[in-house]
Amino acid sequence: MATLKVPANVPPSEEDAEKLHKAFAGWGTDEEGIVGIFAHRNGAQRKLIREAYAAAYGEDLLKELEKELSGDFLRAILLWTLDPAERDAYLANEAIKKLTASNLVIMEIACTRSSYDLFKIRQAYHACYKKSLEEDVAYYTTGDFRKLLVPLVSAFRYEGDEVDMILAKSEAKILHEKISGKACADEELIRILTTRSKAQLNATFNQYNDHFGNAISKDLKADPKDEYLRFLRATIKCLTSPEKYYEKTLRLAITGLGTDEWALTRVVVTQAEVNLQRIKEEYHKRNSMTLVHAVAGDTSGDYEKFLLALVGKENEHA
Amino acid sequence: MATLKVPANVPPSEEDAEKLHKAFAGWGTDEEGIVGIFAHRNGAQRKLIREAYAAAYGEDLLKELEKELSGDFLRAILLWTLDPAERDAYLANEAIKKLTASNLVIMEIACTRSSYDLFKIRQAYHACYKKSLEEDVAYYTTGDFRKLLVPLVSAFRYEGDEVDMILAKSEAKILHEKISGKACADEELIRILTTRSKAQLNATFNQYNDHFGNAISKDLKADPKDEYLRFLRATIKCLTSPEKYYEKTLRLAITGLGTDEWALTRVVVTQAEVNLQRIKEEYHKRNSMTLVHAVAGDTSGDYEKFLLALVGKENEHA
Repeated sequence: MATLKVPANVPPSEEDAEKLHKAFAGWGTDEEGIVGIFAHRNGAQRKLIREAYAAAYGEDLLKELEKELSGDFLRAILLWTLDPAERDAYLANEAIKKLTASNLVIMEIACTRSSYDLFKIRQAYHACYKKSLEEDVAYYTTGDFRKLLVPLVSAFRYEGDEVDMILAKSEAKILHEKISGKACADEELIRILTTRSKAQLNATFNQYNDHFGNAISKDLKADPKDEYLRFLRATIKCLTSPEKYYEKTLRLAITGLGTDEWALTRVVVTQAEVNLQRIKEEYHKRNSMTLVHAVAGDTSGDYEKFLLALVGKENEHA
Repeated sequence: MATLKVPANVPPSEEDAEKLHKAFAGWGTDEEGIVGIFAHRNGAQRKLIREAYAAAYGEDLLKELEKELSGDFLRAILLWTLDPAERDAYLANEAIKKLTASNLVIMEIACTRSSYDLFKIRQAYHACYKKSLEEDVAYYTTGDFRKLLVPLVSAFRYEGDEVDMILAKSEAKILHEKISGKACADEELIRILTTRSKAQLNATFNQYNDHFGNAISKDLKADPKDEYLRFLRATIKCLTSPEKYYEKTLRLAITGLGTDEWALTRVVVTQAEVNLQRIKEEYHKRNSMTLVHAVAGDTSGDYEKFLLALVGKENEHA
């Protein structure tokens, strides 16, 4: 469920474009006016505003924003303005260039978007970077991470609800054998995680829990410092309970030493129109504090106002 | 270039559907009438005929054809009637069920179709088989074939003409090292073949030839009996010179002991609207005999008539 609030009567996109143009005019910039518009328009409406802006003023709205704004506020507004597939292609490309440190971002995009949305991201990647997403991921990653990441970004998973219980049982057994044998980059384990539908995987993990006494994630904690095992646990979480994965990502971004604004922005901006309501509920439950309260305590200025507008008011949700 | 001949004035699809309905009526079937219509309608027109037939008679044209025809003629007409993405999904699924013997068919579909067409095949696979193509390929193949086939069917290659010559040179070197070291299922070699654009691969193979004295395919002939090496050579051919790959497939289908009707039908039906003209030219050059002559000598009856109608008349081409 989304947290984005769009007013009942949205003005025509030409009017929004005009207001933005005025907000940029003269000395200084009317940041509040910018937030007031952008934080309350959905993806289709934001696209129309970009088009109306280009038609009326012959300028790319993104370029104008870059001139007027700065820092975390700029980054958040730019990401929000991009079309979702373009945005994910951008985030993936940025992560690829930062190499192994950012494998999680690529995995998150590959595992939490719908199959068709992932395909649209691959199309946007062609258009923006003149390469394929899997080509860059394969080239810039190595070892076990590559073995898992390339099929994850290349997947076009079946999305029906059908579950084959006999298969779930037999594949739970394969997973248990591999994990017990510390063969967590084994090709059978990777085949199962990267090709089966999410419904099928859910059944397989339930079988695992029922027959082997532990949740699969618990068995993958054998060595809590092993980076690949941590990555594998995050992958399983993204595939089965994305809201829990995102709750943890937000928690780490907010409660660490300093704030990880990149992670905070990424989760809020990519999820505000999708699943942020559920993520807020998870956050409240796990941290005994609302996400609104946590974000307000860790951010400031226009950046804070914008994130809070996307997260939604405290008394309204969770 | 296609060999399909469509008349200047194509009758409305309702009229074609009616003629087909009449061809099925009473005792016996008017096979010639069926060939006369089907062999001279393009994909969009065949689709309209299927729709018009369902609307007028409440029956699926494919089911009706199954009742009326048989053998190789039936198989050819059925495959031809399917929409291209559905047809490729069907051929891939059929090949998957026959396991390793048919890896070539899956590779051929993955490597010779455009990136977007391959995606449409993956969508059709979801719709027809309630699974993903890569899921079935990964489950039913093993070893080196699996390592190569899964990324081949999952690829969404970039299709621009841009070539990075420095990269081509460095990747030609990697390929040469792996092949010299007999590591032909090495993950770097597979990464290059399965993720780079066809234009980039072509440049890489040229660099290989220029710097290491042999065409890459020649170096992959070290052990001519090795099935995986043969598969790798066929993959490279499909990616760079599909008409040569298809010429050889036709040659083996026709000149072997008996005729391989499945391969013959598959190539003619899938290529008649795409590239069969170029394949015919290759065939003539390599065999000193036209494809029309070869097909006529190896087939008979309605099946022969239908294939020849798709291949085009002798004096017209090649």
